[in-house]
Amino acid sequence: MLRVGLLGAGRIGRVHAVNIAGHARSELIAVSDVNEDAARLLAEAHGAKAASTEEILADSSIDAVLIATSTDTHSDLIEKATAAGKAVLCEKPVDLSLDRARACLEAVSSARVPVMIGFNRRFDPNFAMIKAAVAAGEIGKPELLSITSFDPAPPPLSYVKLSGGLFRDMMIHDFDMANFIMGDMPKTVSAVGTSIVDPAIGAAGDVDTAVVTLTYADGRITVIKNSRRAVYGYDQRLELLGSQGLLSAANVLENTVSKATAAGVTSARPEFFFLERYMRAYAAEWDAFVKAVLDGADIPVTLRDGVAALALAEAATISARTGQPVEPPM
Amino acid sequence: MLRVGLLGAGRIGRVHAVNIAGHARSELIAVSDVNEDAARLLAEAHGAKAASTEEILADSSIDAVLIATSTDTHSDLIEKATAAGKAVLCEKPVDLSLDRARACLEAVSSARVPVMIGFNRRFDPNFAMIKAAVAAGEIGKPELLSITSFDPAPPPLSYVKLSGGLFRDMMIHDFDMANFIMGDMPKTVSAVGTSIVDPAIGAAGDVDTAVVTLTYADGRITVIKNSRRAVYGYDQRLELLGSQGLLSAANVLENTVSKATAAGVTSARPEFFFLERYMRAYAAEWDAFVKAVLDGADIPVTLRDGVAALALAEAATISARTGQPVEPPM
Amino acid sequence: MLRVGLLGAGRIGRVHAVNIAGHARSELIAVSDVNEDAARLLAEAHGAKAASTEEILADSSIDAVLIATSTDTHSDLIEKATAAGKAVLCEKPVDLSLDRARACLEAVSSARVPVMIGFNRRFDPNFAMIKAAVAAGEIGKPELLSITSFDPAPPPLSYVKLSGGLFRDMMIHDFDMANFIMGDMPKTVSAVGTSIVDPAIGAAGDVDTAVVTLTYADGRITVIKNSRRAVYGYDQRLELLGSQGLLSAANVLENTVSKATAAGVTSARPEFFFLERYMRAYAAEWDAFVKAVLDGADIPVTLRDGVAALALAEAATISARTGQPVEPPM
Amino acid sequence: MLRVGLLGAGRIGRVHAVNIAGHARSELIAVSDVNEDAARLLAEAHGAKAASTEEILADSSIDAVLIATSTDTHSDLIEKATAAGKAVLCEKPVDLSLDRARACLEAVSSARVPVMIGFNRRFDPNFAMIKAAVAAGEIGKPELLSITSFDPAPPPLSYVKLSGGLFRDMMIHDFDMANFIMGDMPKTVSAVGTSIVDPAIGAAGDVDTAVVTLTYADGRITVIKNSRRAVYGYDQRLELLGSQGLLSAANVLENTVSKATAAGVTSARPEFFFLERYMRAYAAEWDAFVKAVLDGADIPVTLRDGVAALALAEAATISARTGQPVEPPM
Repeated sequence: MLRVGLLGAGRIGRVHAVNIAGHARSELIAVSDVNEDAARLLAEAHGAKAASTEEILADSSIDAVLIATSTDTHSDLIEKATAAGKAVLCEKPVDLSLDRARACLEAVSSARVPVMIGFNRRFDPNFAMIKAAVAAGEIGKPELLSITSFDPAPPPLSYVKLSGGLFRDMMIHDFDMANFIMGDMPKTVSAVGTSIVDPAIGAAGDVDTAVVTLTYADGRITVIKNSRRAVYGYDQRLELLGSQGLLSAANVLENTVSKATAAGVTSARPEFFFLERYMRAYAAEWDAFVKAVLDGADIPVTLRDGVAALALAEAATISARTGQPVEPPM
Repeated sequence: MLRVGLLGAGRIGRVHAVNIAGHARSELIAVSDVNEDAARLLAEAHGAKAASTEEILADSSIDAVLIATSTDTHSDLIEKATAAGKAVLCEKPVDLSLDRARACLEAVSSARVPVMIGFNRRFDPNFAMIKAAVAAGEIGKPELLSITSFDPAPPPLSYVKLSGGLFRDMMIHDFDMANFIMGDMPKTVSAVGTSIVDPAIGAAGDVDTAVVTLTYADGRITVIKNSRRAVYGYDQRLELLGSQGLLSAANVLENTVSKATAAGVTSARPEFFFLERYMRAYAAEWDAFVKAVLDGADIPVTLRDGVAALALAEAATISARTGQPVEPPM
Repeated sequence: MLRVGLLGAGRIGRVHAVNIAGHARSELIAVSDVNEDAARLLAEAHGAKAASTEEILADSSIDAVLIATSTDTHSDLIEKATAAGKAVLCEKPVDLSLDRARACLEAVSSARVPVMIGFNRRFDPNFAMIKAAVAAGEIGKPELLSITSFDPAPPPLSYVKLSGGLFRDMMIHDFDMANFIMGDMPKTVSAVGTSIVDPAIGAAGDVDTAVVTLTYADGRITVIKNSRRAVYGYDQRLELLGSQGLLSAANVLENTVSKATAAGVTSARPEFFFLERYMRAYAAEWDAFVKAVLDGADIPVTLRDGVAALALAEAATISARTGQPVEPPM
Repeated sequence: MLRVGLLGAGRIGRVHAVNIAGHARSELIAVSDVNEDAARLLAEAHGAKAASTEEILADSSIDAVLIATSTDTHSDLIEKATAAGKAVLCEKPVDLSLDRARACLEAVSSARVPVMIGFNRRFDPNFAMIKAAVAAGEIGKPELLSITSFDPAPPPLSYVKLSGGLFRDMMIHDFDMANFIMGDMPKTVSAVGTSIVDPAIGAAGDVDTAVVTLTYADGRITVIKNSRRAVYGYDQRLELLGSQGLLSAANVLENTVSKATAAGVTSARPEFFFLERYMRAYAAEWDAFVKAVLDGADIPVTLRDGVAALALAEAATISARTGQPVEPPM
C-alpha cells in the first residue's frame, strides 16, 4: 500500500485525490495547500488529514507525494521531496524556466526514488493505442504526425499572464505527445502564432492560436495546431501517416445519439472539458505511478521527458517571436 | 450496338433514356407514350424518333424494348414484345395481379429473348457489395437480414389508390432485395401495417408504415421496415447478421461536410430522392441488360424474380389484413 | 445516508456493491449469498459484513436491500423485504411466472417503501437522451421504434435451460425499453424465433434469434431484434422514426482510433460486454434509487413496469410457439 | 451552343472531352495533340475531328479552347488563343515560371475573352459548401484553416523531374484552395519538406512530404499538409476553425458498406484517384466555364488566381530550401 501526501488542493489536486483514494493499492494520508480550508475540506472528504507541506515531507510514514501546486513551486518541491526520500508524481510543466528545470533534473539525477511527470494524455487509451500500433509496425514507417488540440474557451486573462504563454502552458502537452509518438526529439521547431481569438491576449504578450512544425533528423515531420477557443468543445485529435497507412484518434463524444430532420443530421459534440475527456487517463496515470513505485515498473514519463517538452516550448516561443526556425536547446 | 425502343416517357422513362443514349453499346431509336408530346420531346432530346408502341414492336431494326409504362400494361407489353422477338427490360412490378404475372411468366416461358425486370437496387454498388461479401463467406452463415426503406414523403393520394398498396408498390423492392441477398424464398410472411403518417391513406385502404417478418425453411429471418415518410430524406439501409459478423450498408449522404458549433455537430442528410440515390444503379442495370442481350451474359433479374417478389407482396397484403402469417403462394 | 444490505454476491451483485459503496449517500452494510464464501469476500472488499438474508431483513439499522439473487427468489424476497420495511431495488426479471409476479405486485401494493426494478438500460445516457428528446417533441409524433439487441455470445446451455427463454431472459430488457420510450403497452405482440445460432438451444426448447413486432392502439409500431451471438461485440442500438425526424442511438465503441491501409479502414468494435457497456447506467440506476428512497423522488422503474415487461415476454413466448399475434395478458 | 477545341488528348484531356461533349450547351469540334493518333482516337470517340493546334486557333467557328497540354506550353497557348479571340479554360498551373506567368497575365490583360484556370477543386461540392457556409457566417470569423492533401502514390520519377516540384505541381491546388476559402493572399509562407517517401525524389531535388504554414495580415493562419503517398487512397480533407465553430469536409468514400467482425469494424477507403474523386467537380467546372462564356457569368477562377497560387508555390519552394519564412512575391 502506497501512502501518499497530496500537495495542492485545487482543481487538479481534487482529481488526483479521487484517484489516490480510490486506488486499491494507494491511500491518501495528508493534503496541503496554501489555502488551509481547501486542504482541510479535501482531506476530510477522503478520510485524510490536512497538514503543511513541510509536515508531509517530514512524515516518514508517507512514501510518495503528488505535486499539484502552482507551477512556480514545482522544481523546488521535486528537489525537496526527492531529498526527503519521497517518490514524486509532479504535474506538468516542470517549470516555466528551462534553466531551472534543467537544474532540477541535475539536482535529482542521483535520487533513488521515482520521479514522474504528469503528462496525462499519454495514458489516454486512444493515444496509447496509436503508440502501440506504431510500435507494432501497423502502418509501416511513421512519416507525418498531426496533432490538433483546441480548448473550448480561453482561460481568464489573469491566468494567461502567469501561464508562461501558450507554448509552455498548453502546447507543452502536444510537445510531449510528439515526443511520445515519435520517440525522438526534433531538430528544428518553427512556430507561428496569433492572438486572433482575443486581442487582449496579444496585448499581454501571448498568442491564442498557433501552428508549430517540427522536423526530425531522419526526415519525419510533426505539425501541431492549438487554439484557445473551439466553441463546440475540447477538440483533441491525432493522426499519423506512415508508409503503410494512417492511424487516427478521433474525439471522444458526449454521447452516441444523432437526430435526423429536414434540417440535417445532428450528433454529439466532443466531451467539453479536459476533466471529462481525460478522466480515464488520470486514473491510468496514477495506476502507472503506483506500479512504478511499488513494483519497480518503468517510469512512463520521466523528469527528463518533462524537460524535453519544456525545451520544445522554449524553442517555439522564440520561433514565434523571431519568425526563424529554432533548434531546441537540448 | 443494341437498338432500343423506349415505351413510356414519364419520370422513370426519362432516366432510362439518358442511360440508353449514353451507353457506348446501345442507341435509343424510338420513344412511345400515351402522351405524344412527351414522347416527342424525349425522343428529340436524344436524337430518336417518336413512334407508337405498335410501330416500335413492328420495327424489325429494333432489338430491345424498355417498358416504363404504367403498371397495368406491363404484362401485356412483355408478352407482345417477346412475341415480336424483342429483348425486354421491364420496370417493376410485373403486375399488380399475381395471377396475371404468373400467366405472363407462363406465356413467355419459351421465348428465346432475354426478359429482365428492373429491380434497380440490386445494382446499387453498396448492396451489390453486401451480396458479394456474403457469397465470399465474409460473415459466415447469414442469419438475420434487416432492411430499412423509408421514402421522404408519401405520394399523392390519387397515386396511392392505383398503386396496389404499399406492399406491391414500395416494399416489393425490399422483397426482391431479401430474395437477392438470402437467395431463397421465405416460407412465411408476417406483416403489420398502419396509416399513422396519413389517415387518408388508411381510408383509401392502404397502409403507410409497415413491418414485415419473413422466415425461411433453414431458420433464417428477414425483417423489413417501410415508411412513406422520413422528412430527412430517402432512407435506404440494409444489414445482415451472420455467424461471423455483421455487414451494413449505410445511407448515401448528400455531401461530406460537417459543422461543429456550440449547438452540436451537424452533417449531411441522405440523398433526398430515389433518382439521386440510385442514379448509378440505373446505369449499372442498363449495362447489365446490354451485356445479357449482346453477350449472352446471365440475366441478373428474371421475370421469375419479378413474380417471386410479387408473391411476397401478395402474402404481406393478406397478412397485414388478417393478422395471420401467410405462406407465399408460389 | 442509506444503509444497504446486498442479497446476492454473484457477477451482478459485485457490480452493485461497487456502486453502493462508492455512492456518497449510501453505505454497504451487509452481504448475503447462498455461497457464504462469496458473500464474505465481497463484504470484506467493501468494509461490510457477511450475513444471512434473514439477518439482513431483521436488522432494523438497514434501510434498503438490493436483490441480486437468482430469479426464482425475486418475488419472495421482494415480499419479505417490503414486509420488513426495507426499500427494494430488485434485479430483472421480477419472476419467470407472470402469475407469480402479479401476485407479488398485489402483495406489496400497499407497502409504504419504494420498490424499484433494475432495468438498467433506462439509465444509459444515450437511451435516456432519446426519451428526453421524444418528450421534448424533437421529432414530432413517434411512429416506428426499432431496437437492436445482440449479445456477443450465447450463455452456457445450462443457463439457457433455467433462463425462462430468450423472451423472458434477454428480450425483457427490450420490452421494458419499448414501454419506456413509447410510454404505453402494445395491443398485439407477434414473434418469430429460431435456433439458428445453436441447434442445441432449440433442442432445449428455446430460440437464439428472434424478431418481435408490437402494435399500439394508436397505430404506432415497435420492432425488436435479438440474437444471442454477434461476434463483434455487444450490439445495442435503438432508433425511433417520428413525423419530423429520426432519433438514433449508436453503439458505444471501445475507442476512437481508426486505421486506414490499402485493405480498408478499420475502427473499433462496440464495447464487448454488458458490464463495460452499461457501467455508467448501473451507477445512474443506483443514484436514482438513492434519491427515490432518501428524497422521495419518483421511482423511475416500478414493480408494475417489471410486470408489464414480463407480460410482453409471456405474450412473445406464446406467439413464437403458435405463430399467432397475442394480446399481452394485462 | 459553345463550339470547343480541345488542345491535348492525354489523361486529363480525355476527362474534359467527356464533359464538353456531354454538356447540353457545348460541342466538341476538334482535338489536337502532339501525338496525332491520340488526338484522332479521342476526336472520333466524340464525333469531333482531329486537327493541329494552329488549325484550331485559326478556325473562326470555334469559340473556345480547353488547354490540357503539357505545362510548359500553357502560357504561350493562353496568349495565342486569346489573341485569336477564343475563350480559354487552361489546366493548372499557368506556368512553372512565375515570371512567365506574370508576363502572360500582362499580355492578356486587355483581352475581351474570358480566361479561366482549371482549379477543379473549387467546384467540388463539399469544398464549395464550406466556402458558402463561411460566407454565410455560419462559423463566425474564420481563424485557422487546415488542408490535408495526400496522393495515393508518387508519380514516376521522370514526371517528378519535370513537374516543377511538389509545391508547384501538387500543393498549388491547396494554395488555390487557401486563397479561395480565405479570400486573401497570405503575408508569409513557411515551408518544411522532406523526401521520406522516396529518397530518389530527394536526389532529384524535390520533396515528397511537406507542411506549409501561411499567415495573413489580419492574424489568420492556414496550414497545408501534402504527401505523395497515402496507401489507403486519395486523402482530400479540409477544416476551418472559426470564432463560432468548425467546418470540415471529410473524404468521399468508395462505398457505404461496413463489416463488423471479431477483428474490428472495416469500412471503405477514400476514392482512390483524383479522377473518381473529382469527377463531379470537373463537370461543374466545365459548366461554370460555359456560363461564363455564353451568359457573361463571373469567371470563377481567373488567370490572376492562377498566378497568385503560383506565387505561393514559388515562395514555398524558397522557404523549404532556406528555412526562412518568405513573403509571397506579389
